Amino acid sequence: MSTQDFAFTTTICALATAPGGALHIIRMSGPQSLEIVGKIIDKPTDRWQPNSLHYAHVLDHGHVLDEVVVSCYKAPHSYTGEDCCEISCHGSTYIAHRLLQVLADNGATMAQPGEFTQRAFLNGKLDLSQAEAVADLIASKSKAAHRMAMNQLRGRFSSELQQLREQLLRLTSLLELELDFSDHEDLEFADRNDLLQLATAIDRHISRLAMSYKAGQAIKEGIAVAIVGETNVGKSTLLNRLLKENRAIVSDIHGTTRDTIEDTTQIGGLTFRFIDTAGLRQTDDAIEQIGIQRTHEAIRRASIVIWLTDERPANRQIDEMYTLTADKTLIVVQNKTDLLKDNSLPACQKPEAWTCPMHFISAKTGEGIEALEHAICQAAQIPDLAPDQTIISSARHYHALVHAQDSLQRVVNGLANPNPIVTNDLIAEDLRIVLQDLAEITGGQITPQETLNNIFSHFCVGK
Amino acid sequence: MSTQDFAFTTTICALATAPGGALHIIRMSGPQSLEIVGKIIDKPTDRWQPNSLHYAHVLDHGHVLDEVVVSCYKAPHSYTGEDCCEISCHGSTYIAHRLLQVLADNGATMAQPGEFTQRAFLNGKLDLSQAEAVADLIASKSKAAHRMAMNQLRGRFSSELQQLREQLLRLTSLLELELDFSDHEDLEFADRNDLLQLATAIDRHISRLAMSYKAGQAIKEGIAVAIVGETNVGKSTLLNRLLKENRAIVSDIHGTTRDTIEDTTQIGGLTFRFIDTAGLRQTDDAIEQIGIQRTHEAIRRASIVIWLTDERPANRQIDEMYTLTADKTLIVVQNKTDLLKDNSLPACQKPEAWTCPMHFISAKTGEGIEALEHAICQAAQIPDLAPDQTIISSARHYHALVHAQDSLQRVVNGLANPNPIVTNDLIAEDLRIVLQDLAEITGGQITPQETLNNIFSHFCVGK
Repeated sequence: MSTQDFAFTTTICALATAPGGALHIIRMSGPQSLEIVGKIIDKPTDRWQPNSLHYAHVLDHGHVLDEVVVSCYKAPHSYTGEDCCEISCHGSTYIAHRLLQVLADNGATMAQPGEFTQRAFLNGKLDLSQAEAVADLIASKSKAAHRMAMNQLRGRFSSELQQLREQLLRLTSLLELELDFSDHEDLEFADRNDLLQLATAIDRHISRLAMSYKAGQAIKEGIAVAIVGETNVGKSTLLNRLLKENRAIVSDIHGTTRDTIEDTTQIGGLTFRFIDTAGLRQTDDAIEQIGIQRTHEAIRRASIVIWLTDERPANRQIDEMYTLTADKTLIVVQNKTDLLKDNSLPACQKPEAWTCPMHFISAKTGEGIEALEHAICQAAQIPDLAPDQTIISSARHYHALVHAQDSLQRVVNGLANPNPIVTNDLIAEDLRIVLQDLAEITGGQITPQETLNNIFSHFCVGK
Repeated sequence: MSTQDFAFTTTICALATAPGGALHIIRMSGPQSLEIVGKIIDKPTDRWQPNSLHYAHVLDHGHVLDEVVVSCYKAPHSYTGEDCCEISCHGSTYIAHRLLQVLADNGATMAQPGEFTQRAFLNGKLDLSQAEAVADLIASKSKAAHRMAMNQLRGRFSSELQQLREQLLRLTSLLELELDFSDHEDLEFADRNDLLQLATAIDRHISRLAMSYKAGQAIKEGIAVAIVGETNVGKSTLLNRLLKENRAIVSDIHGTTRDTIEDTTQIGGLTFRFIDTAGLRQTDDAIEQIGIQRTHEAIRRASIVIWLTDERPANRQIDEMYTLTADKTLIVVQNKTDLLKDNSLPACQKPEAWTCPMHFISAKTGEGIEALEHAICQAAQIPDLAPDQTIISSARHYHALVHAQDSLQRVVNGLANPNPIVTNDLIAEDLRIVLQDLAEITGGQITPQETLNNIFSHFCVGK
């Protein structure tokens, strides 16, 4: 489907707010928006100015359904690029239900998930990667996830892709020039090495974007932290403390259900997903017993492992834990400092064999928790990323970039080939594939309806 | 606190929508609304016209927090009667949290539950009974509850109270005239019988309002229906069918949690609350066994009792059930018609001894359910109410009306007293009490802060 020569004839509507709360917003978009609203309220809409607000009564079979305020937007200056109305009504489920029904009775159709944003894309208000950022922005719970989505929505990723596209087109035209006039010995072409350098720079840029996917996923889904240790060392107390102390964003907002983020919390602007490993048997030979399936599995899934103990482990235990967490960030935490009479006791000293950070805390009293949180944040830093780098978090973008890399690798190899004329055709073909892969991300070319459905079906209704 | 000479100096803000969904609305009210918004967005607000919409970027420490649309309302033409702004942002909990924080950093204070509506009341935009109707309207889930709240919000109850007040004032002035000039034998006073008639009419009106409270409560809280019967007669299947077939209002709206209305459903515009009595033991002597505590308790709480059977009960069982449900509406339902080969079988005939309605259904196939629902609605009708009568549902209003009735009864008795001069003083005093009771309902006089706090603390934040 093209982003041009497209005009919707239907007018869609949906509840754009979560049910409940003081207010509900019913959103409408399409050419009949104003006409349909005019049929259901007690005043004419035909002289409404763009960007204006109107107090009105909605009528349902002659009875006043609600006192509402209607926002009027006119094409193309609206979210979707079409005429839009937003009806702000009292937050009753009965009213929302009836209002949607009355709109439907007067010619509106119920919007599918993401249909408003899909229209915004098809009407050229956003490119596809920006449209996808809208869903990420709405889902964002941490500062980092918000920043990532906002950068993408504001077109930073799109403009990097545009820059890459321009470099690729320059490379293509230089190559094609060489191809067309290769028998004109008097013409001077770009230095083969310059072309190779340009291709390598593009490759590095695309690699950097693709490699940011892992970090983007961690930011979006949360950084997995396994808390391991024997029973009774205080894992649950530590988990509760880490979850509780950072729940401000939830508890500040009336009505949020805690269940949905039960084991997730924000620390220092990042989302952490704590993996429960409760239930290990206590034994004198702890490390052997730690080897049971679920702890291994938790460690495998985690990026960071917190090893919680309440006494100084034996060197052999330390060695075994080092082996188990070889490719992870290990933080060793000794709990129950509140039970120690004197913090200078040998139990509170870091064993000499340890190279990883060690923390002394009391999960019960909160002592040392702040420093531990700081350490968890430190451990979550991805050192390969420049502080201002664009981070991608969409599997669709990642796969397009990886596919582009494959072709680009062949371009780089081809340019390094000593027989240029034979391979220039193939190189040009590979460059076209790379351009196509990048265009898929922003939807700059015809995007199959199936792809669009797949993207927008993950949106909420009303967006 | 008076509704006059009151001006708030603070500017309040709150999330007015439920967390989640595509959009969030942050609502602000108070003299600094526009000034504070001007500090947090990327454009000046000082020339904004009333009832206008403005696209803007909210900045949070130099970074774009969100792309928003701000609605601008100017005093007195707003919900609260003050300058108001509503910021429509993406439905992310992070954004909502930060936006409220940024507003607080720039001088806004977090609103208490119902504080916007309380300001609307104190600024004279609504009377107290209308303000209370706002909370009822938001909570309304059925057509009847919605209609009741909307009538109250639109001032129907208030205008009836105003009418009563005028009648009471007329009665008072006639009485005082008689009192002041009782020694002027040449003056002609209102006929004592006319006064008595007027007082009686007022009394009847107040009684009618007070008596509507039971119906109002049933409409607001749901009409309690107990489904009783032995195990295996299909009580759960019937309950599921009644709940499922009427869940459209919930399932149509994305994201509603079913748990909260698990046993409540809408039938014919009314809310019914089904009381689970599952768990009765099966026995040949069923009625004796039905006498266990929880069934008695369920019947006691219900207005309607559905007695579900799967065979023709004995006359003695019928007699016992009649006794148990003497002050309720009993509906006898024979289930499992799908197991009968022929509907004209004796099992499908109503025993002669029965005077209550009897229904034949199959909870499994749905046969007869529609007729049963119709019967449940019929049973819920409160015959004492005129079709267009004002219905009250607030305990506060009920108690004020009952208190007024007490005094009014003394007025009626006093007017019927053969010695008018002695009692006119007392009658006038009682009339003042009645006027005061009615004024308490609309908040037309000074309302104690405690009463206001009690009313508005039951609101949601943001309203």
